[in-house]
Amino acid sequence: MLEIDREQLLADLEALSLIGRGPDGGITRKALSPEDRDARRYVADRMRAAGLNVTHDQVGNLRGRRAGRSSGPAVMTGSHLDSVPSGGKLDGPLGVVGAIAAVQSLGDLKTERAIEITVFVGEEGSRFPRGTIGSAALSGHLPLAEVLALRDPDGITYGQALDTYQDSGELVPVCAPVHAFVELHVEQGGVLEREGIPIGVVTAINGLVQRRVTFHGDANHAGATPMNLRKDALLAASEWALAIERIARELGGGAVGTVGKLEVQPGGKNIIPGRVDAICDLRAPDRALLSALDEQVVAALREAERRGVRVEESRLQRVEPGPMSEAPMRAVEQAAAECRLAARRMPSGAIHDALHMGDCCPSTMIFVPSIGGKSHCPTEDTAPEHLVQGCRVLAHTLAILAG
Amino acid sequence: MLEIDREQLLADLEALSLIGRGPDGGITRKALSPEDRDARRYVADRMRAAGLNVTHDQVGNLRGRRAGRSSGPAVMTGSHLDSVPSGGKLDGPLGVVGAIAAVQSLGDLKTERAIEITVFVGEEGSRFPRGTIGSAALSGHLPLAEVLALRDPDGITYGQALDTYQDSGELVPVCAPVHAFVELHVEQGGVLEREGIPIGVVTAINGLVQRRVTFHGDANHAGATPMNLRKDALLAASEWALAIERIARELGGGAVGTVGKLEVQPGGKNIIPGRVDAICDLRAPDRALLSALDEQVVAALREAERRGVRVEESRLQRVEPGPMSEAPMRAVEQAAAECRLAARRMPSGAIHDALHMGDCCPSTMIFVPSIGGKSHCPTEDTAPEHLVQGCRVLAHTLAILAG
Repeated sequence: MLEIDREQLLADLEALSLIGRGPDGGITRKALSPEDRDARRYVADRMRAAGLNVTHDQVGNLRGRRAGRSSGPAVMTGSHLDSVPSGGKLDGPLGVVGAIAAVQSLGDLKTERAIEITVFVGEEGSRFPRGTIGSAALSGHLPLAEVLALRDPDGITYGQALDTYQDSGELVPVCAPVHAFVELHVEQGGVLEREGIPIGVVTAINGLVQRRVTFHGDANHAGATPMNLRKDALLAASEWALAIERIARELGGGAVGTVGKLEVQPGGKNIIPGRVDAICDLRAPDRALLSALDEQVVAALREAERRGVRVEESRLQRVEPGPMSEAPMRAVEQAAAECRLAARRMPSGAIHDALHMGDCCPSTMIFVPSIGGKSHCPTEDTAPEHLVQGCRVLAHTLAILAG
Repeated sequence: MLEIDREQLLADLEALSLIGRGPDGGITRKALSPEDRDARRYVADRMRAAGLNVTHDQVGNLRGRRAGRSSGPAVMTGSHLDSVPSGGKLDGPLGVVGAIAAVQSLGDLKTERAIEITVFVGEEGSRFPRGTIGSAALSGHLPLAEVLALRDPDGITYGQALDTYQDSGELVPVCAPVHAFVELHVEQGGVLEREGIPIGVVTAINGLVQRRVTFHGDANHAGATPMNLRKDALLAASEWALAIERIARELGGGAVGTVGKLEVQPGGKNIIPGRVDAICDLRAPDRALLSALDEQVVAALREAERRGVRVEESRLQRVEPGPMSEAPMRAVEQAAAECRLAARRMPSGAIHDALHMGDCCPSTMIFVPSIGGKSHCPTEDTAPEHLVQGCRVLAHTLAILAG
C-alpha cells in the first residue's frame, strides 16, 4: 500500500487556504487574479520539488509531468485553484496538492505511461462568464480564440488577464491527447458521510439547466386589498418553488431542483409583492431525465395564471450530463480494494473539469466525504483521515492506469 | 345639493402633486421635510382664501377653522400631506383640499358648531419611527414630550425638525375637545370599483400585527445535495406564506395577511437558501379576529420543523382595531342619500388618522373608489367624478354634523 505524506498534504492545504482568505475565513481566488497567481506559484514550486517537469499551456493551465517509459499520451489528474466568492479550502486544491502527494508516494516506481498533473484555470466561473475554461480548452471543447476573447465584468479579456499572469516554465499547446483522466475532489454533498463510505466513484457529471423566471403580479396595499382581489407575485413564486421540490422528488434517479435566488419587489412590509425575479437550478445524471425535469418545472409555471400573475421565463444555460467511463471507474474500485477501503458509485451533482475531459479520454473522479455535506462556504471541510485515504486511492489508481 | 368647485379641486390636487414629484411620477414628501412644508404653505394659503382662521398646534398640525354660532367643540375633518416614498397624489391630499372644497361649498350657510380642517403631521411613518403622529397627539393618545423626542434615521428629533419648519398663524394647544371627526380618503383597495359604488362608509379601522420571522436552514451546493438531505429555508418560508393566505381566506370577515418583504441568503443561483428573513402583515377589523389570525399564522411556523429549518420570530407591532361610531356613519349615509349616491359600509384595511380620532370623539371616514385598487404608488388615481362626489358627500356630512 502506497504511503501518503500526511503532514506535507495538510501543510500544502493550509498554505493555500491563506491565499485570498477573507475575514469570515472564506477564500476568494478569482481566475487569473493576483491570489490565483500566488496559489499557482506555490503549486509550481511544489511540483518542481516533487521532480515534475513544469510547463504551462496557451490558456494558462499549469502542467507538471512525471515521465513514463513511453513518450505517448499521459494519464492525467488534477483540479483547479480558483474559488467561488468566500468559498472553502478543499474544492479544487485537494485535487491539486493531493495529486502531488499521490505522485510523490509512487517514489521510484516506473510506469509505462507518463503521469501529468494539470491545474485547470477558471473552473468556478466566478470571474469570466463561464466555468471549466481550462478543461474545456484542453479537451478541444472550447476553441482557443473563444477563450482569449472572454470578458470579465470590468471588460478585461481573458487574453489581457493572461498577459499579466506570470507563468512557469515552457509554453506547450493546450490540446494534447490524454490516455485517461481521474480527478480527486470533495463530494460537496452528504451522501458518503451519511453512509459511512470513504470513497465515491463518479459515474456521471450531472447535467444542468438554469432558468430565469419573472413573476409579474400587482403591487398593492397589504391592508386595503381583500384576499380575493390580489395578484401576489410571491405566492405564485412560492407555489412554483414547492412544485420544483415535488417534481424532483417524484422523478427520483438523482434529479435535484433548487430556487437559490429570489428577489421580491417592491419589498415593503405592507405592500403586496408586485414582482418576483427568481432563478431555478435543475440537475440530473442523464439527458432524458434532465429534459423531463426541465419540462415539468416549466409546465408548473402555468399555475401562476390561476392568480392572474403573468410569467416571463428564459433559459440561462443547459449543460448536457457527462457520463464517465467504465475502465477508469474499475481502476478506482480496484485501487480502493487494494487500500482496503469501501467505495460506492455515485453521480456528481456539481460540474467539474472531468465533464469536459470525459469528452476526450476515459475519465472518472474520486470523491471523499464532505463534513456536513458543506461546500462553497468557509466551513467546507473533510476529516484528515479521509483526505489521506483519497490521495492513497488516487495514487493506486494512477499506478494502475499508467501501467 | 351643495356644489363643489370641480376645477379648483382638481387644480389644488395637481398643484400639490408637483411638490416632491420624482422622475417616475411618484411623490415623496417625508414628514417635516422641505417638500412637506411647501405643500403645507400652499394649503395654508388656500385655507385663508377660503376665509378660515389658520393656526398651528404644538406638534405642527395645521388647523383652519370656520366659525359656528356656538364657540364649543368643532366638527373636525382633514387628512395629511406627507407621503410614502414615491407614493400617489391622492392619499392624504384629497382629504385636505377636498375638505377646503367642501367647506367652501357651504357658502353663507350658518352652522351651530364650528368646522375645523386639520392637516395632521406624519401620518405615513416614512421618516420618524411611527405613523399617525399628529392625530395620536391631538387625540391625547401620544404625549407631547414623546412626540418631540422621536428621532429620524439621521438622529434628528421631531422637536428639532419642527423648529426649522415654518408654521402659519397662531400657536394653539394640540389637545382640544372635538365634537365629531370625518375624513375623506381614497379607498386604496378595489372593492368600491368592483361593485360600482361611489361612496364607502368606514365602520372600523382594521387592526394590525406585523411579525419578523427568520428561517434558518442549511446553505449548501444545489447540485451536490440530494433532495432528502436538504434544509431549504426558502421552501419553509414559501409554505408559510401560502399558509398565511389560506388562514386569512378561511377566517374571512375581512382578515387579510401578506408577506411583503422576503430576503433570501446567500442568494446564489446554485446555492440552497440557508436563511430567509421575512415580515408578515396581518389585519382584521376586530380584536378577536386579529388575535385568531395572528395565533394561527404563528402556529403555521411549526411546519418548518418538518424540514429541519429553525425559526426565530418576534412581533414588530400590534395596533388594535378602531371601531368607528354609528352617529357619524349615519350622517354620511344620509348625506349620500341627499346627493343621490349609493353608499356601502366597509372596514378600512389601511390605518388612518381616524383611528386615533375615534378614541376622542365619534368618528368615521368617507371612501371614494381607487382605480384598479392601486395606492402607495405613482399610478394611484380616482376618476374626477368620484373625487367631486366624495367632496359633496363630505360637505353634506359636515352640514349635518355641525347642525
